[in-house]
Amino acid sequence: MLELLSEHACFGGVQRFYRHESREIGLPMRFSVFIPPQAQQGPVPALFYLAGLTCTEETFMIKAGAQRVAAELGLMLIAPDTSPRGADVDGESDSWDFGVGAGFYVDATQAKWAGHYRMYSYIHELRELVGQELPVDARRIGVFGHSMGGHGALTMALKRPDVFRSVSAFAPIAAPSQCPWGKKAFTGYLGEDQGAWAQYDATSLMTQATTPFPAGILIDQGLGDKFLAEQLYPEAFEAACATAAQPLTLRRHAGYDHGYYFIQTFVEDHLRFHASNLATV
Amino acid sequence: MLELLSEHACFGGVQRFYRHESREIGLPMRFSVFIPPQAQQGPVPALFYLAGLTCTEETFMIKAGAQRVAAELGLMLIAPDTSPRGADVDGESDSWDFGVGAGFYVDATQAKWAGHYRMYSYIHELRELVGQELPVDARRIGVFGHSMGGHGALTMALKRPDVFRSVSAFAPIAAPSQCPWGKKAFTGYLGEDQGAWAQYDATSLMTQATTPFPAGILIDQGLGDKFLAEQLYPEAFEAACATAAQPLTLRRHAGYDHGYYFIQTFVEDHLRFHASNLATV
Repeated sequence: MLELLSEHACFGGVQRFYRHESREIGLPMRFSVFIPPQAQQGPVPALFYLAGLTCTEETFMIKAGAQRVAAELGLMLIAPDTSPRGADVDGESDSWDFGVGAGFYVDATQAKWAGHYRMYSYIHELRELVGQELPVDARRIGVFGHSMGGHGALTMALKRPDVFRSVSAFAPIAAPSQCPWGKKAFTGYLGEDQGAWAQYDATSLMTQATTPFPAGILIDQGLGDKFLAEQLYPEAFEAACATAAQPLTLRRHAGYDHGYYFIQTFVEDHLRFHASNLATV
Repeated sequence: MLELLSEHACFGGVQRFYRHESREIGLPMRFSVFIPPQAQQGPVPALFYLAGLTCTEETFMIKAGAQRVAAELGLMLIAPDTSPRGADVDGESDSWDFGVGAGFYVDATQAKWAGHYRMYSYIHELRELVGQELPVDARRIGVFGHSMGGHGALTMALKRPDVFRSVSAFAPIAAPSQCPWGKKAFTGYLGEDQGAWAQYDATSLMTQATTPFPAGILIDQGLGDKFLAEQLYPEAFEAACATAAQPLTLRRHAGYDHGYYFIQTFVEDHLRFHASNLATV
C-alpha cells in the first residue's frame, strides 16, 4: 500500500519518503514522514504539516529543522505534497499560486478541477492510511502549516476538532475569501458563489463557531513578511477569535519574513505546544 | 565591496547572502553568512563551512539546522560556494564531480583550469574579506565541512593551523589521492604528478606533520554512507593520526548516510566543539 522511496537515519529516528495510490486524488501521491525513536516502543502522537505554495513533501523536512525536537518529544511528523501531480488539467502549471503546488486543501467542485484536486479529502485519506500503516496513536493527531498550509491547518482543525486535537500555523492565509491568493484559488476550484467558500475560510469558520477549539490556537507571524498586508489577514482571524471567545496566541515578530529562516526559528515552540496539547487528550 | 543579495531574520540574528568580485577567482562569487545576535556587541568567533559536491553557498544554511546553536553560542557561520561560476571552461559542467560545483578547495595548476579554479586561495581571500567587512574576531576562526568540503576543511586547517584554530568534518574525503573522486579532481586540476597532490591530501599532510593540530580533530562518519568504502577512507586518516600522535575523535554512526539528515543530527556537537576550542585560543 505504501511504497518506500527512501529512508535516512536522523536524530535516532528515521526520515522516510513514500509514494502511494491515492483514492481521493486518483493519482499517485508522495509524502514524507519522520518517525521518532519512541515509535519503536509503540504508537506515538503525530503532527501533519501542510506546506505553502510551490512546496513539496520534502520542503519542511529539509528546511525546518524540526526532527531534533520531534525526536526528543516522541512526535511523528507527516508532510504531504501540496497538490496532485500529473493530473494533466489544462493550464494547471500556468501560475505558481494556483494548480500544481497550490491545491489549497480544498475539494474542487468546478468540473475542470474536481476530478483530481481534492486535497481536503486527501489529507483525511492520508491520515487514515498512516493510522493503518505506521505506529500512530490515532487519538493524538495535530496539524500545523505555513502560509497556504497554515490556512489548510486552521480550516482542517476547525472543521474536524474531533480528529485534529491541536493546531498551529506560521503566517497563515487566515481569511482567504478576502485576499488575492484566496479569491483566485476559491474562484477556480469552488466557483464564483462565495457561499461555497466559507467552509474553507478560517475566519468565516471561526465567526460561525459555536464552541471554541479546545486546545487553543498558536500562530506566529513575522512583521517583515512581504505578504502580510495583502494576503494574510491575521487581524481578521484574531478579531473573529475574540468574538467567539476562542483562545488564540498570535505572536508578531519584528523583522521576520515569510520563509523557512522564520519557521526554523519558532518551530520548536510549535512542537512543544502540540506535544503538550496531545499529551492531555 | 560586498553586495547584499538578501537577508532574513533567524534566531535573533540574521542570515545573509552576499556577492563580491573575487580577486583570486577573477569572477563574482557568492557566499552566505549567519550573524549571531552577539555580534551586535562586538566581534565574534567565526566558522567556515565548506560544502560538498554539487552544493552551493545556500545548502548548509537551509539544510543543516545550525543557526539555532550558532545563535546560542555566538558563532558566525560562513559558507562559500563550491567552485567558480561562469568561468566558461570547456567541459566544466560535463560531470557532477569535477568542474562546476566541484572545486575541491585547490589552486589548479593545469592551464585550462588555472585561471579561475583557485578555491584554496579563494577561501583565504574570503576569510580576509569577512574579517574586514563583518564583525569577526580574526583570532578565533575555525573550519568544518562535508565530503569534498570535509577534505577542504582538514587540508586548510592542517596547512594553516595558525589561521584555522579548530577543525572538524562530516564524512570527509580523507585521502583523496587514493579514491576515484580525488584522483579525477587532482589529475584534472593539478596534473598527473602525484607529488603535487600531497599538499591537498589530509592523510598525506598528517603523515608529514611534525606537530599535532593543537585543538584535536572531530570527524563524524555514517556507516550507512554509500560512499564510505570507495571514496572516503577515514581509516587511512585515522592511521596517519595515530602515527603522528594527533588527537582525533572519529565517531562512526550505525545507519547514517551521506546526506544532511546525518549532518543535522550531529551539527550541534560540531558547533559546541568549535566554540569550546575557539574560546581557549
